[in-house]
Amino acid sequence: MLFRQLFDQESGTYTYLLASAPGREALIIDPVKGQVPQYIQLISQLGLKLVSAIDTHTHADHVTGLGDLRDQTGCTTIMGAYTKAECVSMQVKENDLISIDGIKLRALYTPGHTDESFSYVLNPDKPDAVFSGDVLLIRGTGRTDFQNGNSEKSWDSIVNKLFRLPDQTLLYPGHDYKGWMSSSIAEERRFNPRLAGKSKTEYIQIMDNLSLPNPKLMDVAVPANLACGQS
Amino acid sequence: MLFRQLFDQESGTYTYLLASAPGREALIIDPVKGQVPQYIQLISQLGLKLVSAIDTHTHADHVTGLGDLRDQTGCTTIMGAYTKAECVSMQVKENDLISIDGIKLRALYTPGHTDESFSYVLNPDKPDAVFSGDVLLIRGTGRTDFQNGNSEKSWDSIVNKLFRLPDQTLLYPGHDYKGWMSSSIAEERRFNPRLAGKSKTEYIQIMDNLSLPNPKLMDVAVPANLACGQS
Repeated sequence: MLFRQLFDQESGTYTYLLASAPGREALIIDPVKGQVPQYIQLISQLGLKLVSAIDTHTHADHVTGLGDLRDQTGCTTIMGAYTKAECVSMQVKENDLISIDGIKLRALYTPGHTDESFSYVLNPDKPDAVFSGDVLLIRGTGRTDFQNGNSEKSWDSIVNKLFRLPDQTLLYPGHDYKGWMSSSIAEERRFNPRLAGKSKTEYIQIMDNLSLPNPKLMDVAVPANLACGQS
Repeated sequence: MLFRQLFDQESGTYTYLLASAPGREALIIDPVKGQVPQYIQLISQLGLKLVSAIDTHTHADHVTGLGDLRDQTGCTTIMGAYTKAECVSMQVKENDLISIDGIKLRALYTPGHTDESFSYVLNPDKPDAVFSGDVLLIRGTGRTDFQNGNSEKSWDSIVNKLFRLPDQTLLYPGHDYKGWMSSSIAEERRFNPRLAGKSKTEYIQIMDNLSLPNPKLMDVAVPANLACGQS
């Protein structure tokens, strides 16, 4: 499989480009608008045909590349069923299968960071990896204090959905700020400091008392992303 | 296989942690001193026993974690045969095989960025990947204007050694500054702008006229690294 993890240094965002092999159809997860020229270069050099661009959720910390990629490649744009973004060409719901030229992704509804966040399980019959957006991070979890985030739903999404994936399923999140690029479900179950050994009540208490400042780009990014990054 | 690519944001350095599986013996390539506590945490959580820490070359842009890892884990410290660092416990030469609990690395002498740079080929019988340090980067090459760097040797190392690896061999470099984490030998042969379609003479001309400023940490890092990061 061709798998490329890409990093936007300004927002700390991970983007994922997947295809069965060079020359095949491809999809991209959580592209960043400012990086679109680089994605286009890479897609072209690898001889890929981009057919889908997926956002795990409406990002508040960067502007999405969905609209620009759609305009430049003709790809479909995909988000989950509860998104308020009216620009996307396809909405997936729980358990929907995205199948593209040998790449299979199963959609899992995982609200908590936002009320419309989805995660995507790669090769769901025998999961290789999960792209968790911002609900589950490496040794962390996504904040739950804006965009209809909800700490109780975050717990449910992580503990009752993501943590039920097989141990060795690799975790590829939407961000990391300490330079770690992947983890596994087994690792996060055991070592995620917000979750391991914690009760649901304790988790809710932690998340509801983080008192984080809003993301710098929030007022720009959210409205822009409701228009696929082209408002 | 357990494979973790880690990123030091300050110096743009990639570090690689490899083992056959959790609980097994492990090795680390190009660790950064400031990140050692994080490596130790990850190694411990994964139940790994760190047995070797390798530097591809004497770094000029960050202080190595070799000495600290040796002190904290008892691992051997490895560099190539021509290093001036007298602190390392093992020096490898061309074609030496490092074999650790199911992980095999073949040493390739690839001078050019420095006169003592080595690359390491993972699973050399059927190469999966090469860790190229700074001689070959993603769509770039390491500067050749200090530490006995030499643009002609850089060409020879890349074109006559690394580019002879199989097409699909993944390239994992020591740095990337644009957020790309891997490439392949086929890609760099075709798309590396300093090499593709260029003659050796043209390459030498490009490299000898880059006029780059010295790395910020050079005066600190090089002497520190000759003492495994503990001067």
